[in-house]
Amino acid sequence: MNMATDRVTGCLVTIGDELLLGDIANGNSRHIAMELRSRGFLLSRMVTVGDQEDAIVEVLLDCLQRGRFLIVTGGLGPTEDDRTPGAVSKALDRPLLPNEEYMEWLRQRLKAAGRPWSDAVGKMAYLPENAAKIGVGMAGFSLVHQGIPCYFLPGVPKEMRWLMAHVVLPDLEERFPRRLRYVKEFLRIQGLYESEISRRLEGFDPSRLEVEMGYLPQWPEVWLTLLAAGVSAEAAMEKIAEAERALRPRFDRHHISGRSDDPIEAVIGRDLLARGFKLAVAESCTGGLIARRITAVAGASDYFDRGCVVYSNAAKMQLLKVPPSLLEEHGAVSEPVAAAMAEGMRAQCDVDVALAVTGIAGPTGGSPEKPVGTVFIACSDRQATRVEKHRFRGDRGDIQEHSAHAALVLLWKTMNP
Amino acid sequence: MNMATDRVTGCLVTIGDELLLGDIANGNSRHIAMELRSRGFLLSRMVTVGDQEDAIVEVLLDCLQRGRFLIVTGGLGPTEDDRTPGAVSKALDRPLLPNEEYMEWLRQRLKAAGRPWSDAVGKMAYLPENAAKIGVGMAGFSLVHQGIPCYFLPGVPKEMRWLMAHVVLPDLEERFPRRLRYVKEFLRIQGLYESEISRRLEGFDPSRLEVEMGYLPQWPEVWLTLLAAGVSAEAAMEKIAEAERALRPRFDRHHISGRSDDPIEAVIGRDLLARGFKLAVAESCTGGLIARRITAVAGASDYFDRGCVVYSNAAKMQLLKVPPSLLEEHGAVSEPVAAAMAEGMRAQCDVDVALAVTGIAGPTGGSPEKPVGTVFIACSDRQATRVEKHRFRGDRGDIQEHSAHAALVLLWKTMNP
Repeated sequence: MNMATDRVTGCLVTIGDELLLGDIANGNSRHIAMELRSRGFLLSRMVTVGDQEDAIVEVLLDCLQRGRFLIVTGGLGPTEDDRTPGAVSKALDRPLLPNEEYMEWLRQRLKAAGRPWSDAVGKMAYLPENAAKIGVGMAGFSLVHQGIPCYFLPGVPKEMRWLMAHVVLPDLEERFPRRLRYVKEFLRIQGLYESEISRRLEGFDPSRLEVEMGYLPQWPEVWLTLLAAGVSAEAAMEKIAEAERALRPRFDRHHISGRSDDPIEAVIGRDLLARGFKLAVAESCTGGLIARRITAVAGASDYFDRGCVVYSNAAKMQLLKVPPSLLEEHGAVSEPVAAAMAEGMRAQCDVDVALAVTGIAGPTGGSPEKPVGTVFIACSDRQATRVEKHRFRGDRGDIQEHSAHAALVLLWKTMNP
Repeated sequence: MNMATDRVTGCLVTIGDELLLGDIANGNSRHIAMELRSRGFLLSRMVTVGDQEDAIVEVLLDCLQRGRFLIVTGGLGPTEDDRTPGAVSKALDRPLLPNEEYMEWLRQRLKAAGRPWSDAVGKMAYLPENAAKIGVGMAGFSLVHQGIPCYFLPGVPKEMRWLMAHVVLPDLEERFPRRLRYVKEFLRIQGLYESEISRRLEGFDPSRLEVEMGYLPQWPEVWLTLLAAGVSAEAAMEKIAEAERALRPRFDRHHISGRSDDPIEAVIGRDLLARGFKLAVAESCTGGLIARRITAVAGASDYFDRGCVVYSNAAKMQLLKVPPSLLEEHGAVSEPVAAAMAEGMRAQCDVDVALAVTGIAGPTGGSPEKPVGTVFIACSDRQATRVEKHRFRGDRGDIQEHSAHAALVLLWKTMNP
């Protein structure tokens, strides 16, 4: 560890009966941990307690002893089971006082929405003494207790994320400027099992480059993780870049599609845009999932012309001009129909490249020759039409997700031969 | 609380640096919490610590004071950062002793795989004194400390799940036979804010029916949660049913669409099927998301004919016969175009009902008259075409999700006038 820098660890408390009962996954904890780590802050402990004031008081007092900062989410809403401000008041012996600005904002908001004022809403504007309201248009406050900065964020993921990015992280960075930075990158690996990746990496020692390597299966992708520490993010990043350069030759050009913040649909979008290509998609068993992933990328309208979800044979014939004889002879789930769907789609709207999927997602509809999970994927451009046959395992959702992903991988390979 | 039964709460500890760094979501915690609750066991606290012996020792000792059982996952593997057995030994003052049976199994397994014996692997067979090995072919042990049953499970989800189902839950049930059962139901509420729901429920006291009520915002739905305890699951369920009957009159018929295991797309599917109706969907800004949600339901092919993702104006004209003059006069994002899309879709494939969405998901494409988030939704059946104008907030993903959900709600209302 570099002497010029400092390891800054803190605690995270998430509050809510719904977490202890397993009603929802604790996505907030993961997000906060990731964001902290990416800025050079570590967590030593994450604790979840329910909506009981006593339990919250106890865990707050305990965590204040354990870390150099404290982040708390949940329990800030207008309902009776939102007990965080009361618990903070009790734990830190600070009375709850009205925050006039926040109160006024709540009043205006209710008025604008034509809704009556209620004490339940008003309760949200009572904050512990000397706490600062953080964020506008959402709950949240911060305070410093015995030198420990404490942030109280709403459990609503969108609001929590906004406050993390715009308040908590900038404030922590200002308070702890001389800390080690941790950088972690994930390489998205396509079409290889973890054991095969491990075989290809035999004898490769990233610790020589001060990089820690790991695997994170994110089916149907496997993510190879690279973690490095440094006096600056740039120094850590350089170690990772060196490790990546060293390991890349062990893979083929269609194994690593990009980093974690660059999903394959975004890579495809840039490829299409760079060539001025237009794309259309014809989906049967994926039911719109491919179109949905492509259009999730901002700016997709610059290269995505249309998608057709052709569940019925009538739709396949009418929209894609698939010949009825082909459907009769081979069935809707077949190589010739997949090819005809892609070619028909491309011809119908005169785009440069078209993708088509037909398959059996189940749970019913399988047969001995074509069991559930049988999927044909076709990609047609002005040169050729490629068709792949797959057999995916899992439930309906798994098969749909795998089919859509395999189709995007085929499109990516077609665009980068 | 019934005198014949008992409230049994315990603690869960999950161990691993990868959790504190946010590399992976803590899916184990949610699974264990859900499984426990469904069998009548509750958690009062969930704690995550890293792979440091001292931290594990401390949290074990703390949790032993807090609950009537203890479940721990992680840190049982062969690598250097697997430190749970050592921490247990230290915390409970029990020496680590070799478990000969497990040692032999590990020997055989390595031999079968053609790999040499290593002390790292052998380390796995050293268990705290008086601990019992649990599970075969995986790590895991249990012990009873000062009357508290403690279960130590691997972090590998598949192994953890197997041990929960086959060892932990049966053992807990035997040890605590006279416990309360907990049942939780969620009502999906459409089109109301949490504060408005709270207002409608003013004066409604579910505790009179021995039911605990809570809110779980799952935008754009809010889930009203009802939790009850009883001597049996049936007794608890009856309390919830009574609470639901009592609160329903406070809402309109289009507020509660169903329970948590019954998403609105499944309700719609049953409605369509019951009437023998066929559905088609025309999407612009939602990019396939509506079709994707509808086709996520098994059996959707019985009522879903097709979907069109019409990103370009050419696609709107060609596939939906939207008149060019309408697009020119009002723009693609307009009430008349939304109506024409739904009507055109319905006419083109002669279905009973068609849904259409056109809007500006952003981040670009907005204007002063039609800012980002402006969305028109139309639903056309053989009687009429209804159009709604919405203005959604948030980023591209939020606007897409909200638009798709609002479209499904409109379809649901149309099917249930």
